[in-house]
Amino acid sequence: MIYFDNASTTKIYPEVAEFICKYSQNNFFNPSAIYHQGTEVFKDLKNSKQELLKLLGTVKHKLIYTSGATEANNFALRCFIKKNKKILISAGEHSSVFETAKILSENYNVEFIKLNSDGLVDINDLTNKLTDDVGLVSVIHVSNETGAINDLAQISKLIKEKCPNALFHSDGVQAFGKTPINLSHMGIDIYTISSHKIHGPKGVGAVIFRNDLLPKPLIFGGGQENGLRSGTENSANILGFVMSAKKMISNLETNINHIETLRTALFDNLKDLEFNFNGHNTQRIPNIVSLNFNNVKGEVLVSMLENEDICVSTGSSCNSKHSGNRVLMQMGKTKTQEEGNIRISFCEENTLDEVKKFVEILKTCVNKIKGLNIWKK
Amino acid sequence: MIYFDNASTTKIYPEVAEFICKYSQNNFFNPSAIYHQGTEVFKDLKNSKQELLKLLGTVKHKLIYTSGATEANNFALRCFIKKNKKILISAGEHSSVFETAKILSENYNVEFIKLNSDGLVDINDLTNKLTDDVGLVSVIHVSNETGAINDLAQISKLIKEKCPNALFHSDGVQAFGKTPINLSHMGIDIYTISSHKIHGPKGVGAVIFRNDLLPKPLIFGGGQENGLRSGTENSANILGFVMSAKKMISNLETNINHIETLRTALFDNLKDLEFNFNGHNTQRIPNIVSLNFNNVKGEVLVSMLENEDICVSTGSSCNSKHSGNRVLMQMGKTKTQEEGNIRISFCEENTLDEVKKFVEILKTCVNKIKGLNIWKK
Repeated sequence: MIYFDNASTTKIYPEVAEFICKYSQNNFFNPSAIYHQGTEVFKDLKNSKQELLKLLGTVKHKLIYTSGATEANNFALRCFIKKNKKILISAGEHSSVFETAKILSENYNVEFIKLNSDGLVDINDLTNKLTDDVGLVSVIHVSNETGAINDLAQISKLIKEKCPNALFHSDGVQAFGKTPINLSHMGIDIYTISSHKIHGPKGVGAVIFRNDLLPKPLIFGGGQENGLRSGTENSANILGFVMSAKKMISNLETNINHIETLRTALFDNLKDLEFNFNGHNTQRIPNIVSLNFNNVKGEVLVSMLENEDICVSTGSSCNSKHSGNRVLMQMGKTKTQEEGNIRISFCEENTLDEVKKFVEILKTCVNKIKGLNIWKK
Repeated sequence: MIYFDNASTTKIYPEVAEFICKYSQNNFFNPSAIYHQGTEVFKDLKNSKQELLKLLGTVKHKLIYTSGATEANNFALRCFIKKNKKILISAGEHSSVFETAKILSENYNVEFIKLNSDGLVDINDLTNKLTDDVGLVSVIHVSNETGAINDLAQISKLIKEKCPNALFHSDGVQAFGKTPINLSHMGIDIYTISSHKIHGPKGVGAVIFRNDLLPKPLIFGGGQENGLRSGTENSANILGFVMSAKKMISNLETNINHIETLRTALFDNLKDLEFNFNGHNTQRIPNIVSLNFNNVKGEVLVSMLENEDICVSTGSSCNSKHSGNRVLMQMGKTKTQEEGNIRISFCEENTLDEVKKFVEILKTCVNKIKGLNIWKK
């Protein structure tokens, strides 16, 4: 099997899975218990936060664990915002930000910042929308559809100049472990990350936010996480997540270089096929490639590739079951381009051989589909 | 080590931990992906729901997975309630219901149903509070503090007679896998369960609700769980949870009988110590025993037992870090009784030898503490 859908989810590192297996048995104690077996788990969790914050280059933020990035993004948007304030989100957000903002629009003024054609936030549009009443701005760090990297430092500077009291949130799910991050330098107030996109277990994410911020809880109960996120901590998975994060980030440069060669090989081998590329050519992570072939429907191509034991997607998993690719449409892509889209996403474990084999099969599939003319309804 | 704090959390079954380890590696695919590796995980999740519903004796309910019972209880209270309706909760609820109700009281009329002295809901008080405007009633199935079992069938009948449109929710966290449950016969509209209390992994719970109910989501995003709970499913842990549930329930009778003998042995051996028992003598699960010794502070006793490698608690973990035991106070216990409380909670893996050894050490500790007189400040 060739697995090129790593932006959707990644395979957990075997050593992380093994660690979780052992920790969940040997250290199953409730971290809220007052005996030492419990307080030791509590300490492990506390230390793991310091490790994550260090990986994110900050001493000015704290961190709470959540059940994943979706909950983390819900928390980021819903729990820091003040009454009568405006929320700005980019039109390129993941559905966990987008759908949350849509719900918030029942009680808040929510505006969407346009994307330019390569999938980045339109800085002019952002500038125009930064009015005095803005309370929160949310801009995805790396697009889950195209891999384009928004320049968060630049955006933060702009926000802080025009709206010094507005909070700046960024969904870092596709960025964390894939590109260097320094929350202090970037001027981020709130940041969200996920475990299962970096070979960690599913069911874990985190919200990182400035030390001085006082959010409300999203989930109420026993008062864990200093009252900000109740519920017995999923300790084994949380520590597994941090293990994965440490491995990903200690290998960051090597991984980026390796994946860059995979990407180069992909484009080199694709040369003689006519295709349209979606995203930014340079301001991007190498992991995600979004493209479409003339007269080839993405869904059909993904199915044909599946028959050859290749996993790619038509875009983010969340969108795949809905109608259309919201982000590509916002980038001004035609309906044909959007329906033709396939998203190829690498991880550091993929190989050059896989890329070569993939392109070979891809070519056969694309030509077959074109011959069938099934798309021209 | 003697672990008698199973109401706080349980040790995961080794075979479940091993299963999770393998499934998370071999079936790591995103259940929302459209290729067969993804749809197979989706099918596994779907089938697991049918298995859980069967274990709960119902074909009239559906189920969504959550990150745990705390989220499940938040969902149960916040996502079904209609505007201008009254919420009734028992004074014996777990903090995930209690604290959520407290927050809801900002916008809803919330009333608390009294407990009687053995920790059960006061039926007279409930009857008086069942007025026309009641929208939701929440009564814990088995008390996490005392093990007392509320008669849900009786309570449901009362609610349906006096408030036919009110929904009846029960937090079944300490009941599921510990006492027979049939949601259809019991007349439950919404029920919540947890994985880590039945030797399943942490980070998983479920809300079960009547097929015809249309709740709002608590967490927004990619539209998983039919739009009711967004976020990539924690598939390995979910399936591990269902494995544990099946094992617990297939051994239910044997487990109850075994734990009943442990309980009997505990009380037999405790005879010559003066103590006060909190809870109902017969209408209870055998797993949880709440008691206090004259002039012995619970916290001190728990610490001394800890030094002897014995884990018990002063009450629910959530309460342990707060001031006082809310539920015992509602039962009319004195401050002395409440501060003296220790909660001993068994699982089926505990043995008679452990109970005997425990009581021996307990006696020494209690006598030592009495001798020290440290409690009489």
